[in-house]
Amino acid sequence: MSGYKPIGVFDSGVGGLSVLSHLRIKLPFENLVFLADQKHVPYGQKTQKELHDLTERVTKFLLNFDIKLLVVACNTASCYAIGHLRSKFSIPIVGVVPAIKPAISLTKTGRIAVMSTPATAKSRYLKDLIGKFANGKKILRLGCSGLEDSIETLDSKKTEKLLNIYVSKVKSFGADVIVLGCTHYPFLKGEIAKRLGNGVRIVDSGKAVAERVNNLLQTPSKISQKNLKQVKQVFFTTGDPLMFSQVASKLLKYNIVGKKAYI
Amino acid sequence: MSGYKPIGVFDSGVGGLSVLSHLRIKLPFENLVFLADQKHVPYGQKTQKELHDLTERVTKFLLNFDIKLLVVACNTASCYAIGHLRSKFSIPIVGVVPAIKPAISLTKTGRIAVMSTPATAKSRYLKDLIGKFANGKKILRLGCSGLEDSIETLDSKKTEKLLNIYVSKVKSFGADVIVLGCTHYPFLKGEIAKRLGNGVRIVDSGKAVAERVNNLLQTPSKISQKNLKQVKQVFFTTGDPLMFSQVASKLLKYNIVGKKAYI
Repeated sequence: MSGYKPIGVFDSGVGGLSVLSHLRIKLPFENLVFLADQKHVPYGQKTQKELHDLTERVTKFLLNFDIKLLVVACNTASCYAIGHLRSKFSIPIVGVVPAIKPAISLTKTGRIAVMSTPATAKSRYLKDLIGKFANGKKILRLGCSGLEDSIETLDSKKTEKLLNIYVSKVKSFGADVIVLGCTHYPFLKGEIAKRLGNGVRIVDSGKAVAERVNNLLQTPSKISQKNLKQVKQVFFTTGDPLMFSQVASKLLKYNIVGKKAYI
Repeated sequence: MSGYKPIGVFDSGVGGLSVLSHLRIKLPFENLVFLADQKHVPYGQKTQKELHDLTERVTKFLLNFDIKLLVVACNTASCYAIGHLRSKFSIPIVGVVPAIKPAISLTKTGRIAVMSTPATAKSRYLKDLIGKFANGKKILRLGCSGLEDSIETLDSKKTEKLLNIYVSKVKSFGADVIVLGCTHYPFLKGEIAKRLGNGVRIVDSGKAVAERVNNLLQTPSKISQKNLKQVKQVFFTTGDPLMFSQVASKLLKYNIVGKKAYI
Protein backbone atom coordinates (compact mmCIF):
# COMPACT_ATOMS: atom_id res chain seq x y z
CA MET A 1 0.00 0.00 0.00
CA SER A 2 2.70 2.54 -1.03
CA GLY A 3 4.08 2.52 2.47
CA TYR A 4 1.13 4.48 3.80
CA LYS A 5 -1.40 3.08 6.21
CA PRO A 6 -4.72 2.88 4.39
CA ILE A 7 -8.20 3.91 5.45
CA GLY A 8 -10.63 0.99 5.68
CA VAL A 9 -14.18 1.35 4.36
CA PHE A 10 -16.94 -1.21 4.50
CA ASP A 11 -20.57 -1.75 3.68
CA SER A 12 -22.80 -4.80 3.45
CA GLY A 13 -22.86 -4.18 -0.29
CA VAL A 14 -21.79 -1.72 -2.98
CA GLY A 15 -23.56 1.29 -1.46
CA GLY A 16 -20.47 2.24 0.53
CA LEU A 17 -18.78 3.00 -2.77
CA SER A 18 -20.73 6.28 -2.78
CA VAL A 19 -18.91 7.19 0.44
CA LEU A 20 -15.61 5.99 -1.02
CA SER A 21 -16.12 8.41 -3.92
CA HIS A 22 -16.33 11.32 -1.51
CA LEU A 23 -13.23 10.11 0.36
CA ARG A 24 -11.36 9.84 -2.94
CA ILE A 25 -12.18 13.46 -3.77
CA LYS A 26 -11.52 14.94 -0.33
CA LEU A 27 -8.45 12.83 0.41
CA PRO A 28 -6.72 12.11 -2.90
CA PHE A 29 -3.48 11.01 -1.23
CA GLU A 30 -4.92 8.31 0.99
CA ASN A 31 -4.74 4.60 0.27
CA LEU A 32 -8.13 2.93 0.62
CA VAL A 33 -9.20 -0.65 1.29
CA PHE A 34 -12.86 -1.33 0.62
CA LEU A 35 -14.78 -4.43 1.70
CA ALA A 36 -18.34 -5.28 0.64
CA ASP A 37 -19.74 -7.97 2.92
CA GLN A 38 -22.06 -9.20 0.20
CA LYS A 39 -22.17 -12.71 1.59
CA HIS A 40 -24.30 -11.28 4.39
CA VAL A 41 -26.29 -8.58 2.56
CA PRO A 42 -28.75 -7.16 3.58
CA TYR A 43 -27.66 -6.13 7.07
CA GLY A 44 -31.16 -4.73 7.66
CA GLN A 45 -32.44 -8.24 8.31
CA LYS A 46 -29.84 -9.21 10.91
CA THR A 47 -30.25 -9.14 14.67
CA GLN A 48 -28.09 -6.74 16.67
CA LYS A 49 -25.99 -9.66 17.90
CA GLU A 50 -25.41 -10.85 14.34
CA LEU A 51 -24.46 -7.32 13.30
CA HIS A 52 -21.96 -7.06 16.17
CA ASP A 53 -20.39 -10.34 15.12
CA LEU A 54 -20.29 -9.55 11.38
CA THR A 55 -18.95 -6.02 11.71
CA GLU A 56 -16.31 -7.25 14.16
CA ARG A 57 -15.12 -9.82 11.64
CA VAL A 58 -15.16 -7.24 8.85
CA THR A 59 -13.13 -4.84 10.97
CA LYS A 60 -10.57 -7.53 11.75
CA PHE A 61 -10.22 -8.28 8.05
CA LEU A 62 -9.45 -4.60 7.44
CA LEU A 63 -7.12 -4.36 10.45
CA ASN A 64 -4.96 -6.98 8.72
CA PHE A 65 -4.15 -4.19 6.24
CA ASP A 66 -2.99 -2.06 9.15
CA ILE A 67 -5.70 0.55 8.56
CA LYS A 68 -5.37 3.80 10.50
CA LEU A 69 -9.07 4.68 10.46
CA LEU A 70 -12.31 2.82 9.75
CA VAL A 71 -15.32 4.18 7.89
CA VAL A 72 -18.55 2.28 8.47
CA ALA A 73 -20.18 3.19 5.14
CA CYS A 74 -23.46 1.49 5.96
CA ASN A 75 -26.35 3.10 7.81
CA THR A 76 -27.57 -0.11 9.45
CA ALA A 77 -24.13 -1.02 10.77
CA SER A 78 -23.50 2.58 11.89
CA CYS A 79 -26.81 2.55 13.70
CA TYR A 80 -26.59 -0.82 15.43
CA ALA A 81 -22.91 -1.74 15.72
CA ILE A 82 -20.65 1.30 15.87
CA GLY A 83 -20.67 1.46 19.68
CA HIS A 84 -19.70 -2.19 19.81
CA LEU A 85 -16.83 -1.64 17.35
CA ARG A 86 -15.55 1.37 19.28
CA SER A 87 -15.53 -0.69 22.47
CA LYS A 88 -13.50 -3.42 20.76
CA PHE A 89 -10.99 -1.50 18.63
CA SER A 90 -8.82 1.50 19.32
CA ILE A 91 -8.55 3.12 15.87
CA PRO A 92 -10.86 6.05 15.04
CA ILE A 93 -14.18 4.86 13.60
CA VAL A 94 -16.48 7.10 11.53
CA GLY A 95 -20.04 6.09 10.76
CA VAL A 96 -22.67 7.43 8.41
CA VAL A 97 -25.63 9.28 9.85
CA PRO A 98 -28.71 10.30 7.83
CA ALA A 99 -28.17 13.99 7.07
CA ILE A 100 -31.15 15.25 9.10
CA LYS A 101 -29.24 18.18 10.58
CA PRO A 102 -28.11 19.65 7.22
CA ALA A 103 -31.63 19.03 5.84
CA ILE A 104 -33.16 21.16 8.62
CA SER A 105 -31.05 24.13 7.61
CA LEU A 106 -32.07 23.72 3.95
CA THR A 107 -35.83 23.27 4.16
CA LYS A 108 -38.09 26.24 3.49
CA THR A 109 -41.45 24.46 3.66
CA GLY A 110 -40.47 22.57 6.82
CA ARG A 111 -41.24 19.23 5.13
CA ILE A 112 -38.42 16.71 4.77
CA ALA A 113 -38.49 13.16 3.39
CA VAL A 114 -35.95 10.60 4.60
CA MET A 115 -35.50 7.74 2.12
CA SER A 116 -33.91 4.70 3.70
CA THR A 117 -34.18 0.93 4.02
CA PRO A 118 -37.25 -0.23 5.97
CA ALA A 119 -34.94 -1.24 8.86
CA THR A 120 -33.48 2.26 9.18
CA ALA A 121 -36.93 3.87 8.69
CA LYS A 122 -38.35 2.15 11.74
CA SER A 123 -35.20 2.34 13.88
CA ARG A 124 -35.13 4.06 17.24
CA TYR A 125 -31.91 5.64 16.04
CA LEU A 126 -33.60 7.58 13.24
CA LYS A 127 -36.46 8.48 15.56
CA ASP A 128 -33.98 9.87 18.09
CA LEU A 129 -32.11 11.77 15.40
CA ILE A 130 -35.35 13.38 14.24
CA GLY A 131 -36.40 14.08 17.83
CA LYS A 132 -33.07 15.77 18.49
CA PHE A 133 -32.80 18.01 15.45
CA ALA A 134 -36.14 18.32 13.72
CA ASN A 135 -38.46 19.97 16.22
CA GLY A 136 -41.38 21.59 14.51
CA LYS A 137 -40.54 20.12 11.10
CA LYS A 138 -42.63 17.48 9.36
CA ILE A 139 -40.57 14.41 8.54
CA LEU A 140 -41.63 11.55 6.27
CA ARG A 141 -39.73 8.36 7.10
CA LEU A 142 -39.96 6.42 3.87
CA GLY A 143 -38.79 2.81 4.03
CA CYS A 144 -37.90 2.00 0.42
CA SER A 145 -38.23 -1.76 0.34
CA GLY A 146 -36.38 -3.41 -2.59
CA LEU A 147 -34.49 -0.32 -3.74
CA GLU A 148 -31.11 -1.28 -2.27
CA ASP A 149 -31.36 -4.74 -3.77
CA SER A 150 -32.20 -3.37 -7.21
CA ILE A 151 -28.94 -1.38 -7.13
CA GLU A 152 -26.92 -4.39 -5.91
CA THR A 153 -28.18 -6.41 -8.86
CA LEU A 154 -28.09 -3.56 -11.42
CA ASP A 155 -31.77 -4.28 -12.08
CA SER A 156 -32.55 -0.94 -13.71
CA LYS A 157 -36.14 -1.83 -14.59
CA LYS A 158 -36.92 -2.63 -10.99
CA THR A 159 -35.06 0.50 -9.83
CA GLU A 160 -37.13 2.64 -12.17
CA LYS A 161 -40.43 1.07 -11.10
CA LEU A 162 -39.60 1.46 -7.40
CA LEU A 163 -38.39 5.04 -7.84
CA ASN A 164 -41.67 5.98 -9.52
CA ILE A 165 -43.54 4.71 -6.48
CA TYR A 166 -41.29 6.17 -3.78
CA VAL A 167 -40.66 9.56 -5.40
CA SER A 168 -44.40 10.04 -5.93
CA LYS A 169 -44.87 9.48 -2.19
CA VAL A 170 -42.26 12.17 -1.53
CA LYS A 171 -44.09 14.51 -3.90
CA SER A 172 -47.52 13.91 -2.30
CA PHE A 173 -45.93 14.64 1.05
CA GLY A 174 -44.65 17.91 -0.37
CA ALA A 175 -41.05 17.66 0.81
CA ASP A 176 -38.59 20.27 -0.41
CA VAL A 177 -35.58 18.38 0.96
CA ILE A 178 -34.87 14.67 0.56
CA VAL A 179 -32.37 12.97 2.83
CA LEU A 180 -30.77 9.86 1.33
CA GLY A 181 -30.44 7.65 4.40
CA CYS A 182 -28.87 4.65 2.69
CA THR A 183 -25.41 4.71 1.11
CA HIS A 184 -26.75 3.01 -2.02
CA TYR A 185 -29.11 5.81 -2.92
CA PRO A 186 -26.63 8.53 -3.95
CA PHE A 187 -26.08 6.47 -7.11
CA LEU A 188 -29.72 7.26 -7.94
CA LYS A 189 -29.47 10.98 -7.23
CA GLY A 190 -29.88 11.92 -10.91
CA GLU A 191 -32.82 9.57 -11.35
CA ILE A 192 -34.54 10.94 -8.26
CA ALA A 193 -33.88 14.57 -9.24
CA LYS A 194 -35.36 14.18 -12.69
CA ARG A 195 -38.64 12.90 -11.16
CA LEU A 196 -38.93 16.01 -8.97
CA GLY A 197 -39.64 19.62 -9.68
CA ASN A 198 -36.95 22.29 -9.32
CA GLY A 199 -36.36 23.57 -5.85
CA VAL A 200 -36.19 20.14 -4.20
CA ARG A 201 -32.81 19.53 -2.62
CA ILE A 202 -31.32 16.06 -2.22
CA VAL A 203 -28.73 15.54 0.53
CA ASP A 204 -26.58 12.55 1.37
CA SER A 205 -23.96 11.88 4.02
CA GLY A 206 -20.89 11.12 1.91
CA LYS A 207 -19.40 14.60 1.89
CA ALA A 208 -19.86 15.07 5.64
CA VAL A 209 -18.22 11.70 6.28
CA ALA A 210 -15.21 12.63 4.13
CA GLU A 211 -14.87 15.91 6.03
CA ARG A 212 -15.07 14.15 9.38
CA VAL A 213 -12.39 11.68 8.27
CA ASN A 214 -10.18 14.53 7.11
CA ASN A 215 -10.52 16.24 10.50
CA LEU A 216 -9.77 13.05 12.40
CA LEU A 217 -6.68 11.97 10.51
CA GLN A 218 -3.72 12.49 12.76
CA THR A 219 -1.25 11.28 10.18
CA PRO A 220 -2.55 12.32 6.77
CA SER A 221 -0.52 10.86 3.93
CA LYS A 222 1.54 13.53 2.26
CA ILE A 223 2.82 12.75 -1.16
CA SER A 224 3.46 15.07 -4.03
CA GLN A 225 0.94 15.52 -6.81
CA LYS A 226 3.24 13.83 -9.29
CA ASN A 227 3.24 10.63 -7.21
CA LEU A 228 -0.53 10.45 -7.20
CA LYS A 229 -0.34 7.30 -9.31
CA GLN A 230 1.18 5.48 -6.37
CA VAL A 231 -1.99 5.90 -4.32
CA LYS A 232 -3.70 2.55 -4.02
CA GLN A 233 -7.30 1.48 -3.78
CA VAL A 234 -8.08 -2.18 -3.24
CA PHE A 235 -11.51 -3.75 -3.30
CA PHE A 236 -12.77 -6.93 -1.69
CA THR A 237 -16.06 -8.72 -1.41
CA THR A 238 -17.14 -11.67 0.71
CA GLY A 239 -19.55 -12.48 -2.14
CA ASP A 240 -18.87 -13.13 -5.82
CA PRO A 241 -15.86 -11.08 -7.03
CA LEU A 242 -16.95 -11.12 -10.69
CA MET A 243 -20.40 -9.82 -9.89
CA PHE A 244 -18.94 -7.23 -7.51
CA SER A 245 -16.43 -6.00 -10.10
CA GLN A 246 -19.13 -5.62 -12.70
CA VAL A 247 -21.51 -3.69 -10.44
CA ALA A 248 -18.79 -1.55 -8.81
CA SER A 249 -17.28 -0.60 -12.19
CA LYS A 250 -20.71 0.44 -13.44
CA LEU A 251 -21.48 2.51 -10.34
CA LEU A 252 -18.09 4.24 -10.05
CA LYS A 253 -17.66 4.54 -13.84
CA TYR A 254 -14.11 3.21 -13.86
CA ASN A 255 -12.66 -0.27 -13.97
CA ILE A 256 -12.64 -2.06 -10.62
CA VAL A 257 -11.34 -5.55 -9.96
CA GLY A 258 -12.62 -6.92 -6.66
CA LYS A 259 -10.93 -9.80 -4.88
CA LYS A 260 -12.48 -12.51 -2.76
CA ALA A 261 -12.37 -11.96 1.00
CA TYR A 262 -12.99 -14.50 3.74
CA ILE A 263 -14.16 -13.16 7.07
CA MET B 1 3.93 -14.37 -2.78
CA SER B 2 6.16 -14.73 -5.89
CA GLY B 3 3.11 -15.45 -7.98
CA TYR B 4 2.69 -18.89 -6.51
CA LYS B 5 -0.22 -19.89 -4.34
CA PRO B 6 1.15 -20.54 -0.86
CA ILE B 7 0.51 -23.39 1.55
CA GLY B 8 -1.16 -22.28 4.78
CA VAL B 9 0.01 -23.67 8.11
CA PHE B 10 -1.43 -22.95 11.54
CA ASP B 11 -1.12 -23.89 15.15
CA SER B 12 -2.42 -22.41 18.37
CA GLY B 13 1.18 -21.47 19.13
CA VAL B 14 4.74 -21.89 17.90
CA GLY B 15 4.69 -25.71 17.90
CA GLY B 16 3.51 -25.82 14.29
CA LEU B 17 6.88 -24.35 13.34
CA SER B 18 8.30 -27.86 13.77
CA VAL B 19 5.94 -29.01 11.00
CA LEU B 20 6.84 -25.97 8.92
CA SER B 21 10.52 -27.00 9.16
CA HIS B 22 9.70 -30.36 7.59
CA LEU B 23 7.63 -28.68 4.85
CA ARG B 24 10.54 -26.33 4.13
CA ILE B 25 12.90 -29.28 3.63
CA LYS B 26 10.54 -31.48 1.62
CA LEU B 27 9.06 -28.65 -0.47
CA PRO B 28 11.75 -25.99 -0.88
CA PHE B 29 9.92 -24.28 -3.73
CA GLU B 30 6.63 -23.66 -1.95
CA ASN B 31 5.58 -20.33 -0.49
CA LEU B 32 4.34 -20.69 3.07
CA VAL B 33 2.04 -18.60 5.27
CA PHE B 34 2.16 -19.47 8.95
CA LEU B 35 -0.31 -18.32 11.59
CA ALA B 36 0.07 -18.87 15.31
CA ASP B 37 -3.26 -18.26 17.04
CA GLN B 38 -1.53 -17.27 20.25
CA LYS B 39 -4.37 -15.07 21.37
CA HIS B 40 -6.31 -18.28 22.00
CA VAL B 41 -3.54 -20.64 23.17
CA PRO B 42 -3.91 -23.31 24.53
CA TYR B 43 -6.49 -24.99 22.30
CA GLY B 44 -6.53 -27.94 24.71
CA GLN B 45 -8.78 -25.99 27.05
CA LYS B 46 -11.42 -25.03 24.48
CA THR B 47 -14.74 -26.73 23.86
CA GLN B 48 -15.30 -28.43 20.52
CA LYS B 49 -17.63 -25.61 19.48
CA GLU B 50 -14.99 -23.01 20.34
CA LEU B 51 -12.40 -24.98 18.36
CA HIS B 52 -14.70 -25.14 15.34
CA ASP B 53 -15.21 -21.40 15.49
CA LEU B 54 -11.52 -20.53 16.04
CA THR B 55 -10.13 -22.86 13.37
CA GLU B 56 -12.73 -21.61 10.91
CA ARG B 57 -11.62 -18.03 11.50
CA VAL B 58 -7.96 -19.03 11.23
CA THR B 59 -8.65 -20.83 7.96
CA LYS B 60 -10.47 -17.81 6.54
CA PHE B 61 -7.50 -15.60 7.45
CA LEU B 62 -5.22 -17.95 5.49
CA LEU B 63 -7.67 -18.23 2.57
CA ASN B 64 -7.24 -14.48 2.12
CA PHE B 65 -3.72 -15.36 0.93
CA ASP B 66 -5.27 -17.66 -1.66
CA ILE B 67 -3.68 -20.76 -0.13
CA LYS B 68 -3.90 -23.96 -2.16
CA LEU B 69 -3.63 -26.34 0.78
CA LEU B 70 -4.00 -26.08 4.54
CA VAL B 71 -1.87 -27.83 7.15
CA VAL B 72 -3.42 -28.03 10.60
CA ALA B 73 -0.15 -28.22 12.51
CA CYS B 74 -1.80 -28.70 15.88
CA ASN B 75 -2.84 -32.03 17.36
CA THR B 76 -5.82 -30.67 19.28
CA ALA B 77 -7.25 -28.87 16.24
CA SER B 78 -6.56 -31.89 14.01
CA CYS B 79 -8.33 -34.10 16.50
CA TYR B 80 -11.41 -31.98 17.19
CA ALA B 81 -11.92 -29.65 14.23
CA ILE B 82 -10.54 -31.10 10.99
CA GLY B 83 -13.85 -32.72 9.99
CA HIS B 84 -15.59 -29.40 10.52
CA LEU B 85 -13.02 -27.56 8.39
CA ARG B 86 -13.28 -30.13 5.59
CA SER B 87 -17.07 -29.71 5.58
CA LYS B 88 -16.70 -25.92 5.27
CA PHE B 89 -13.80 -25.46 2.84
CA SER B 90 -12.94 -27.13 -0.44
CA ILE B 91 -9.12 -26.96 -0.44
CA PRO B 92 -7.15 -30.05 0.67
CA ILE B 93 -6.57 -30.07 4.43
CA VAL B 94 -3.83 -32.10 6.11
CA GLY B 95 -3.78 -32.65 9.85
CA VAL B 96 -1.21 -34.01 12.25
CA VAL B 97 -1.79 -37.43 13.78
CA PRO B 98 0.31 -38.87 16.62
CA ALA B 99 2.72 -41.28 14.88
CA ILE B 100 1.34 -44.45 16.53
CA LYS B 101 1.46 -46.48 13.34
CA PRO B 102 5.17 -45.84 12.60
CA ALA B 103 5.94 -46.44 16.29
CA ILE B 104 4.38 -49.92 16.14
CA SER B 105 6.76 -50.92 13.36
CA LEU B 106 9.74 -49.63 15.33
CA THR B 107 9.17 -51.10 18.79
CA LYS B 108 11.01 -54.25 19.79
CA THR B 109 9.87 -54.44 23.40
CA GLY B 110 6.25 -53.69 22.51
CA ARG B 111 6.18 -50.76 24.93
CA ILE B 112 5.49 -47.30 23.50
CA ALA B 113 5.07 -43.95 25.27
CA VAL B 114 2.96 -41.21 23.73
CA MET B 115 3.88 -37.77 25.07
CA SER B 116 1.16 -35.20 24.45
CA THR B 117 -0.86 -32.44 26.07
CA PRO B 118 -3.26 -33.67 28.76
CA ALA B 119 -6.19 -32.94 26.39
CA THR B 120 -4.81 -35.19 23.65
CA ALA B 121 -3.80 -37.86 26.19
CA LYS B 122 -7.37 -38.32 27.35
CA SER B 123 -9.02 -37.84 23.95
CA ARG B 124 -11.21 -40.49 22.37
CA TYR B 125 -9.25 -39.81 19.21
CA LEU B 126 -5.97 -41.07 20.65
CA LYS B 127 -7.76 -44.01 22.26
CA ASP B 128 -9.25 -44.94 18.88
CA LEU B 129 -5.89 -44.55 17.15
CA ILE B 130 -4.30 -46.89 19.69
CA GLY B 131 -7.22 -49.32 19.44
CA LYS B 132 -6.87 -49.38 15.67
CA PHE B 133 -3.12 -49.88 15.32
CA ALA B 134 -1.60 -50.98 18.59
CA ASN B 135 -3.20 -54.32 19.37
CA GLY B 136 -1.08 -56.32 21.76
CA LYS B 137 1.32 -53.45 22.46
CA LYS B 138 1.53 -51.63 25.76
CA ILE B 139 0.97 -47.90 25.35
CA LEU B 140 1.63 -45.22 27.97
CA ARG B 141 -0.47 -42.13 27.33
CA LEU B 142 1.50 -39.44 29.10
CA GLY B 143 -0.24 -36.08 29.44
CA CYS B 144 2.64 -33.63 29.86
CA SER B 145 0.98 -30.73 31.64
CA GLY B 146 2.90 -27.45 31.36
CA LEU B 147 5.44 -28.59 28.77
CA GLU B 148 3.86 -26.83 25.79
CA ASP B 149 3.59 -23.60 27.75
CA SER B 150 7.24 -23.77 28.82
CA ILE B 151 8.24 -23.87 25.13
CA GLU B 152 5.87 -21.02 24.22
CA THR B 153 7.50 -18.85 26.86
CA LEU B 154 11.09 -20.08 26.30
CA ASP B 155 11.15 -20.95 30.01
CA SER B 156 14.08 -23.35 29.81
CA LYS B 157 14.28 -23.95 33.55
CA LYS B 158 10.68 -25.07 33.65
CA THR B 159 11.17 -27.16 30.50
CA GLU B 160 14.14 -28.91 32.10
CA LYS B 161 12.31 -29.61 35.35
CA LEU B 162 9.25 -30.97 33.54
CA LEU B 163 11.31 -33.09 31.17
CA ASN B 164 13.09 -34.69 34.12
CA ILE B 165 9.72 -35.73 35.53
CA TYR B 166 8.10 -36.90 32.28
CA VAL B 167 11.12 -38.69 30.81
CA SER B 168 11.64 -40.58 34.07
CA LYS B 169 8.04 -41.80 33.76
CA VAL B 170 8.80 -43.00 30.24
CA LYS B 171 11.88 -44.80 31.56
CA SER B 172 10.01 -46.51 34.42
CA PHE B 173 7.46 -47.66 31.89
CA GLY B 174 10.27 -49.15 29.84
CA ALA B 175 9.29 -47.74 26.45
CA ASP B 176 11.70 -48.21 23.56
CA VAL B 177 9.77 -45.85 21.29
CA ILE B 178 8.47 -42.39 22.20
CA VAL B 179 5.79 -40.76 20.09
CA LEU B 180 5.79 -36.96 20.25
CA GLY B 181 2.07 -36.24 20.05
CA CYS B 182 2.28 -32.44 20.25
CA THR B 183 3.89 -30.29 17.57
CA HIS B 184 5.82 -28.34 20.20
CA TYR B 185 7.78 -31.33 21.44
CA PRO B 186 10.07 -31.94 18.41
CA PHE B 187 11.95 -28.81 19.53
CA LEU B 188 12.87 -30.82 22.67
CA LYS B 189 13.96 -33.95 20.81
CA GLY B 190 17.62 -33.48 21.73
CA GLU B 191 16.78 -32.76 25.36
CA ILE B 192 14.60 -35.85 25.57
CA ALA B 193 17.16 -38.07 23.82
CA LYS B 194 19.96 -37.11 26.15
CA ARG B 195 17.87 -38.19 29.17
CA LEU B 196 17.34 -41.65 27.67
CA GLY B 197 19.61 -44.62 27.06
CA ASN B 198 20.62 -45.64 23.57
CA GLY B 199 18.16 -47.73 21.66
CA VAL B 200 15.14 -45.55 22.43
CA ARG B 201 13.62 -44.10 19.27
CA ILE B 202 11.74 -40.79 19.20
CA VAL B 203 9.19 -40.26 16.43
CA ASP B 204 7.19 -37.20 15.46
CA SER B 205 4.65 -36.48 12.74
CA GLY B 206 6.34 -33.64 10.84
CA LYS B 207 8.03 -35.72 8.17
CA ALA B 208 4.89 -37.76 7.44
CA VAL B 209 2.85 -34.53 7.16
CA ALA B 210 5.34 -33.08 4.66
CA GLU B 211 5.18 -36.27 2.60
CA ARG B 212 1.38 -36.24 2.64
CA VAL B 213 1.37 -32.61 1.51
CA ASN B 214 3.81 -33.42 -1.27
CA ASN B 215 1.55 -36.25 -2.49
CA LEU B 216 -1.57 -34.10 -2.37
CA LEU B 217 -0.20 -31.08 -4.21
CA GLN B 218 -1.82 -30.99 -7.59
CA THR B 219 0.03 -27.89 -8.67
CA PRO B 220 3.46 -27.97 -7.07
CA SER B 221 5.40 -24.76 -7.59
CA LYS B 222 8.20 -25.28 -10.04
CA ILE B 223 10.96 -22.74 -10.00
CA SER B 224 14.61 -23.18 -10.77
CA GLN B 225 17.16 -23.65 -8.02
CA LYS B 226 18.68 -20.26 -8.77
CA ASN B 227 15.38 -18.54 -8.04
CA LEU B 228 15.10 -20.14 -4.64
CA LYS B 229 15.54 -16.74 -3.05
CA GLN B 230 12.17 -15.72 -4.42
CA VAL B 231 10.40 -18.31 -2.29
CA LYS B 232 8.52 -16.55 0.46
CA GLN B 233 7.63 -17.42 4.03
CA VAL B 234 5.41 -15.10 5.99
CA PHE B 235 4.59 -15.39 9.66
CA PHE B 236 1.63 -14.07 11.62
CA THR B 237 0.41 -14.27 15.16
CA THR B 238 -2.87 -13.24 16.74
CA GLY B 239 -0.83 -12.60 19.90
CA ASP B 240 2.17 -10.35 20.47
CA PRO B 241 4.31 -10.11 17.29
CA LEU B 242 7.50 -9.17 19.20
CA MET B 243 7.22 -12.12 21.55
CA PHE B 244 6.37 -14.43 18.66
CA SER B 245 9.33 -13.25 16.59
CA GLN B 246 11.70 -13.78 19.49
CA VAL B 247 10.47 -17.31 20.28
CA ALA B 248 10.13 -18.39 16.63
CA SER B 249 13.64 -17.14 15.76
CA LYS B 250 15.07 -19.06 18.69
CA LEU B 251 13.23 -22.29 17.81
CA LEU B 252 13.94 -22.20 14.06
CA LYS B 253 17.45 -20.79 14.51
CA TYR B 254 17.02 -18.06 11.90
CA ASN B 255 15.58 -14.58 11.99
CA ILE B 256 11.80 -14.43 11.83
CA VAL B 257 9.67 -11.31 11.88
CA GLY B 258 6.06 -12.09 12.72
CA LYS B 259 3.24 -9.69 11.89
CA LYS B 260 0.03 -9.07 13.80
CA ALA B 261 -3.04 -10.93 12.56
CA TYR B 262 -6.67 -10.25 13.42
CA ILE B 263 -9.08 -13.17 13.11
